[in-house]
Amino acid sequence: MIVSCVYIHVKPDAVDRFIEVTTENHRGSVKEAGNLRFDIIQQVDDPCRFMLYEAYESEADAADHKTTSHYLNWRNQVNDLMAEPRYGVKYNIIEPNDRSEW
Amino acid sequence: MIVSCVYIHVKPDAVDRFIEVTTENHRGSVKEAGNLRFDIIQQVDDPCRFMLYEAYESEADAADHKTTSHYLNWRNQVNDLMAEPRYGVKYNIIEPNDRSEW
Repeated sequence: MIVSCVYIHVKPDAVDRFIEVTTENHRGSVKEAGNLRFDIIQQVDDPCRFMLYEAYESEADAADHKTTSHYLNWRNQVNDLMAEPRYGVKYNIIEPNDRSEW
Repeated sequence: MIVSCVYIHVKPDAVDRFIEVTTENHRGSVKEAGNLRFDIIQQVDDPCRFMLYEAYESEADAADHKTTSHYLNWRNQVNDLMAEPRYGVKYNIIEPNDRSEW
């Protein structure tokens, strides 16, 4: 099991639209067979900064996510909404180490 | 519902001990009434860097966590294990917005 944290800085006038298109991506992503979580969180002290907490069963499942129509639509739609390029950080999972707790 | 992401840079020779004491904190934390998640994840490209993904029902529940014996023990034990001070970033939750999905 792995986690990708994706950090996204959105233009101030694009926050509502970003939430809308990312919620669509969330709805599709949580239905993927290998998806464990796809949380969208918004920084309290800067509402233009978001993090996507994406947990997958495997690297292959995370790679498959990037071929889905909901991801590809999202990627196109957020291009003009971001204040700077987004970046991701990959993590291995220490706890919970039991699949049933995801 | 809120999330705190806590970023911790551990000394290279303290990684195993950090995992041990943080797993103890995880076990206590997930039993707290207001806790939704307490994930421990380790950065793939730098195993000395960890993130704790702590989700709580409310700010009050997150504050209560810092009064528990498992948190206070953890705080004391990690002091000597860190390469630099840890820091936390607070987030509001956009999705999943249904409590049952946490």
